[in-house]
Amino acid sequence: MRLITLTSDSCTLTSATAMPRASGFLWNRKMMLHSTCRGFVTAQHMQPEPAKYSHAPVVEGRTFMLPETAHYAHHPGRFVYVRDLVSQRHFSVPHEPVRRAPKMFAFTQHPERLEWALEQDELDIRWSLVLPVDEAVELWRLEIRNRLDIERALRIVPYFPVGYMSWMNQGAYFDAGLNAVIASSVTAYQKIDDYFKNQHLKDKTFLTCDRLADAFETRREDFEGEGGLSDPDMLRSGLKGGEALYETPAAVLQFDQTLDAHETQVWHFVFGPAFDEAEVARLKDAYLGAEAFERVCTEARAYVEQGRGVLSIETPDTHFDAFMNRWLARQVYYHGDTNRLTTDPQTRNYLQDALGMVFVRPHSARESLLYALSKQNADGSMPDGIKLYDGAQFSFINQVPHTDHCVWLFILLEAYLDETDDYAVLEAEVGGQSVRARLEAALHWLLKTRDHRRMSYIDQGDWNDPMNMVGWKGKGVSGWLTLAVAYALRLWVRLSGETEPWAAEAEAMNAAMNTHLWDGDWFGRGITDDDAAFGIKSDPEGRLYLNPQSFALLSGAASEAQAQRMVHAVASELETPYGVEMLGPPYTKMREDVGRLTQKSPGVAENGSVYNHAAAFYIYSLTQVKKGEKAFELMRKMLAGVDEADYVQRGQFPVFIPNYYRGDFHAHPRTAGRSSQLFNTGTVAWVYRSLIEGLFGLKGTREGLSIQPCLPAQWAEARATRLFRGSTYHVTYRRGGPPGLMLDGQPIAGDVLPLPQTPGTFEVVVTL
Amino acid sequence: MRLITLTSDSCTLTSATAMPRASGFLWNRKMMLHSTCRGFVTAQHMQPEPAKYSHAPVVEGRTFMLPETAHYAHHPGRFVYVRDLVSQRHFSVPHEPVRRAPKMFAFTQHPERLEWALEQDELDIRWSLVLPVDEAVELWRLEIRNRLDIERALRIVPYFPVGYMSWMNQGAYFDAGLNAVIASSVTAYQKIDDYFKNQHLKDKTFLTCDRLADAFETRREDFEGEGGLSDPDMLRSGLKGGEALYETPAAVLQFDQTLDAHETQVWHFVFGPAFDEAEVARLKDAYLGAEAFERVCTEARAYVEQGRGVLSIETPDTHFDAFMNRWLARQVYYHGDTNRLTTDPQTRNYLQDALGMVFVRPHSARESLLYALSKQNADGSMPDGIKLYDGAQFSFINQVPHTDHCVWLFILLEAYLDETDDYAVLEAEVGGQSVRARLEAALHWLLKTRDHRRMSYIDQGDWNDPMNMVGWKGKGVSGWLTLAVAYALRLWVRLSGETEPWAAEAEAMNAAMNTHLWDGDWFGRGITDDDAAFGIKSDPEGRLYLNPQSFALLSGAASEAQAQRMVHAVASELETPYGVEMLGPPYTKMREDVGRLTQKSPGVAENGSVYNHAAAFYIYSLTQVKKGEKAFELMRKMLAGVDEADYVQRGQFPVFIPNYYRGDFHAHPRTAGRSSQLFNTGTVAWVYRSLIEGLFGLKGTREGLSIQPCLPAQWAEARATRLFRGSTYHVTYRRGGPPGLMLDGQPIAGDVLPLPQTPGTFEVVVTL
Repeated sequence: MRLITLTSDSCTLTSATAMPRASGFLWNRKMMLHSTCRGFVTAQHMQPEPAKYSHAPVVEGRTFMLPETAHYAHHPGRFVYVRDLVSQRHFSVPHEPVRRAPKMFAFTQHPERLEWALEQDELDIRWSLVLPVDEAVELWRLEIRNRLDIERALRIVPYFPVGYMSWMNQGAYFDAGLNAVIASSVTAYQKIDDYFKNQHLKDKTFLTCDRLADAFETRREDFEGEGGLSDPDMLRSGLKGGEALYETPAAVLQFDQTLDAHETQVWHFVFGPAFDEAEVARLKDAYLGAEAFERVCTEARAYVEQGRGVLSIETPDTHFDAFMNRWLARQVYYHGDTNRLTTDPQTRNYLQDALGMVFVRPHSARESLLYALSKQNADGSMPDGIKLYDGAQFSFINQVPHTDHCVWLFILLEAYLDETDDYAVLEAEVGGQSVRARLEAALHWLLKTRDHRRMSYIDQGDWNDPMNMVGWKGKGVSGWLTLAVAYALRLWVRLSGETEPWAAEAEAMNAAMNTHLWDGDWFGRGITDDDAAFGIKSDPEGRLYLNPQSFALLSGAASEAQAQRMVHAVASELETPYGVEMLGPPYTKMREDVGRLTQKSPGVAENGSVYNHAAAFYIYSLTQVKKGEKAFELMRKMLAGVDEADYVQRGQFPVFIPNYYRGDFHAHPRTAGRSSQLFNTGTVAWVYRSLIEGLFGLKGTREGLSIQPCLPAQWAEARATRLFRGSTYHVTYRRGGPPGLMLDGQPIAGDVLPLPQTPGTFEVVVTL
Repeated sequence: MRLITLTSDSCTLTSATAMPRASGFLWNRKMMLHSTCRGFVTAQHMQPEPAKYSHAPVVEGRTFMLPETAHYAHHPGRFVYVRDLVSQRHFSVPHEPVRRAPKMFAFTQHPERLEWALEQDELDIRWSLVLPVDEAVELWRLEIRNRLDIERALRIVPYFPVGYMSWMNQGAYFDAGLNAVIASSVTAYQKIDDYFKNQHLKDKTFLTCDRLADAFETRREDFEGEGGLSDPDMLRSGLKGGEALYETPAAVLQFDQTLDAHETQVWHFVFGPAFDEAEVARLKDAYLGAEAFERVCTEARAYVEQGRGVLSIETPDTHFDAFMNRWLARQVYYHGDTNRLTTDPQTRNYLQDALGMVFVRPHSARESLLYALSKQNADGSMPDGIKLYDGAQFSFINQVPHTDHCVWLFILLEAYLDETDDYAVLEAEVGGQSVRARLEAALHWLLKTRDHRRMSYIDQGDWNDPMNMVGWKGKGVSGWLTLAVAYALRLWVRLSGETEPWAAEAEAMNAAMNTHLWDGDWFGRGITDDDAAFGIKSDPEGRLYLNPQSFALLSGAASEAQAQRMVHAVASELETPYGVEMLGPPYTKMREDVGRLTQKSPGVAENGSVYNHAAAFYIYSLTQVKKGEKAFELMRKMLAGVDEADYVQRGQFPVFIPNYYRGDFHAHPRTAGRSSQLFNTGTVAWVYRSLIEGLFGLKGTREGLSIQPCLPAQWAEARATRLFRGSTYHVTYRRGGPPGLMLDGQPIAGDVLPLPQTPGTFEVVVTL
């Protein structure tokens, strides 16, 4: 059986051990659930701050999602023990906690659900999960089929750990009326204000089933006994009906079930947070049972379909097609529709997630632009995060000042206007000012925060969050940001129709970069508070950074000759089998005039991983200078697979692009390529845009759809279907013959398909 | 074999399963280590904020110590796997993670070390731990003896999990030069100030041995493989020498060792935090090996002996003697010498821990009094916590305003002056003011913060931290605090020699209590912002609180008749086999005019547990009104044992008094009595004082040692040795015969032994 099978409708993994952290994810507008193939689950819901309802055993402090999460025996998860009462053998579904090797194993991500299929001890097991579209609750379905010709006596024990809920108050009981284990807690707090803030919190966790349980247990330790999770005492003895009184709760049910020869039995479960018993009853009514499960599958599928996006492709690389036609848009949609389930997204993330939505649901992108501008500071700058509700707090990194946030407004604006032609948005009013005025205020702020060389101050970070000590004393500048501002200025010239002072300032900034940071083969990353250029050849570590090269291609700072040298340098110094590293070589010790990023583990995250967000900038910039070959090569390297060694090395299930793959390829080949497993990343909007507007060259203009592809030379033919301003374009790309463009069989001069009188479906043939 | 054997020199538990959370603790001035009998360890050291060097697998947020800690498979611990290479069987020392039932098990707390003895697979194992007096490092000793007449081939694998250190940077390698596994990390942070604060942090964890390892491993997951912690893959295959690169570190060593018939082999290990490799080398030189281990045992023993205190007793209850003669003073000393290893102890804790030190090292108590007063606010109030170093921050509960802190100054002062006669301290200068002036300022502040009834405002809490909503609107008063202030005033009258205005104010406050809160059989707990008395008979929950009764006995608010009624009510409503509950019945739902305590789990902590700190107040107050019988009965109930059912029910190893035993005895007999396992508690100073000055009645006065015992009637005879102002008094108490006092054979009139001309050793006989 193949290790992984990826289609545009599902992705299946057939080993629980080859890639133990391989994971899929589901979300809805209220929650997110991330599950490994072995059954470990990280889930959070919003009320409105992120909250958990299934907890680590004693963790108290809340934390953001961690890369390369290290799971552990008592990690939250959703498990079912299956014990043969005759043979006395047992195993667990899907793999943890017992870890007995099954005869057959398949973990499948569908667009709207996760599913495991197992064969073990002559039983076929199917274990499925779906989330409703707009409710924080999990729907599980268990199907067990007897493969034998004889009757079987089984003990089925779903085990849903609830974990350490609160040191203030926690417990659990079985509510016979609701046929549910209900765990209760009081969210721990000490300040009186928090009492009032916490009053609406869903401090209960429940598990209910559509069949009456033979027995139950709610005390985690008693359930396990000395046997521990791999061989719980009560699996043998039967559950004892314990009530958890300030004891770690677990939701455990027991079904002693006889299966006739070849008989199949099915159970449905609902698990999740609730405010009170009345809410448990409501959720049970709405979501429990076979019919509800099917209905929710249909609804959830329809929801994901709403995020299909504007492109589908057919190329010689079917693996590439499968990912791009389904999973990339799905990930874009997840970001844009949920704001990553944060309440104070970083401003740059908020705007770039909206960039992705330009190609999924343009009116959302418009709303995001306006909402972000409504938070603009009086001096034209943008805050570090966008608070999505009134009581939201700036957490973590949003308490550190960064200088790049204004830039992303213009990048979003360009994509939005090209796609929609909705130039009226510039005159829309936001808090008493037009969008146009606000954008100009942002540009003025960017121009004001430059030094005597016209380079942009970096303060405590630009796009690169942990680059916090280049300019914290007030002098250091960011080469990347200087280029990004020049790029934003040029975008504004094109979009606003106003040339001055913007065009001249952009030119001056590009010139400043060439004067102060061109290092012979690439642009340096910045100049520190002590006036030292860095990201240059003489640096033993961090000598070449990717981002300045990408944005020099976009801003026009690089001549064609410079571009060649840069791309060559990047290829030789940063490219790996898993993509292009963000910088190289990674830092191995603190550099106090660069900052915190140099303290990160070498090859991890910002310290020289294949940080896919940066790689995506580079890919996009390559498409803008028509280096399609390289752009495709690097985009393809973002995807795990299709060969097994690559899957195992990365550990990445190809249903999302992770925020990084480990770098430091030359020093640490053992770990290089390893996925962070984090699916929150600004990467995907850029990859999607690069694919649509770049590789396939299907970009909107005021006149119509422009067609300027830069596909890899090895593709003799490819097809794309592009939705654009209400029309559907079926485009065929073919190599060979005289270059040209045909629309519904008629040759077209130039490369823009004029807007039709009425939207319709059109056949386009592009000869390359 | 007896489940538990307690002596004044050691305490031994012979089952790893009967009381799985039973625990002992070690400390020095830099660190604290709390270990369960099964090998789970919670350890922290100070730099100066509390820090860990052995971590939970993914916990990030720091937390305070939790009651009834729920351990889990990957909880930090110190383990040794032992595998017989012939039989292929393995087990682990001391019990986790393999949990194979041993033939013999003994967990022993000595004053200065922890020790496990096991017999398993015809091997005798001894596993011992000691801490140096003034260094954050653990010294371990492993001894294995072959019980058989034949040679054995063993694989010995010490496994010291390091755990998830930091998302910024973590890893581990084996340093051959140091023969040590060294795990390194960068403490995660995001704000630039923290970079500078963190520069001194000991971000490394190391394990070294006095014997060369045959192999090593540093990657936790690889060590375990699919076998998991109970049957790690590498225990079978041999360790593979992996370097952890941003992977969860563990320190694992392998010794393949042949043991001749009856041969014994010994290993020594040093484990702990370090700043850099140079510090590892220094610690290794200083602490590794047999000689260092023995030396540190001697030094650590001597250190604990310095905290022996001023009393040793010999009574018919040898279990009581064993605890009181060693373990109580040890716990008192731990509190007072380390300030519980916090950097901002709550002011009341700081002062009460000093109260204990009055009987251990009086000059420390004096220094604490002066240091606390140096933090007094300009208005006479005391801050909520005492910052012990310049950069210390108020954490957790110290950010909530409490009104009781001034009171404890007078309680500490009384004990200190009675013990030392150092009245000169009143004229000592602290920050430009005399102690006397500062204490009077504190009293004035207490008098000022009363309502029209002369009852004390409670604000967001008094001694009872989570009673935060009685007076948060500015009107509610604390009955307990009113009595405590009256008590403080009366103490000041006695100690300062100044009567007015203090005596009259005390009387007025006692009168106010009688007017507004006497409920017929007891005093109420307070009056809310909305003018509702609570802690009264008509309350369905929380109708009787212990603290007002205790302090009414001390403050003089209660007449003899009232005292009888109160003690009777407490006995019938709050006493349990495990001690006296702090309130009853426990709250089962939020009462918004009382506060957060009502949200705690019923019978847990402040919500009606046997909260030993409150029980100790009550015991002390009973000795002050000469109700010695009841005082002894309740003091005895604080100690687990001596019968096995009591040990198992409480789960408490009798080497410390925990901060609570579960209450709610009538509603929840299953959990009642269960220990919190927390050894930080204001209880012990009060119990020690109650024992010395109360039960044995050996209290200092200006004239000399007063002897006013109130021993239980069933004791026909008892002895005590009391150190007092340089002299040693051997006191024999005997029932029968005419009451009287003999000093070195001479009868003494009255009950005070006059101070001798020169300190010496004296024989005292008290006939009761």
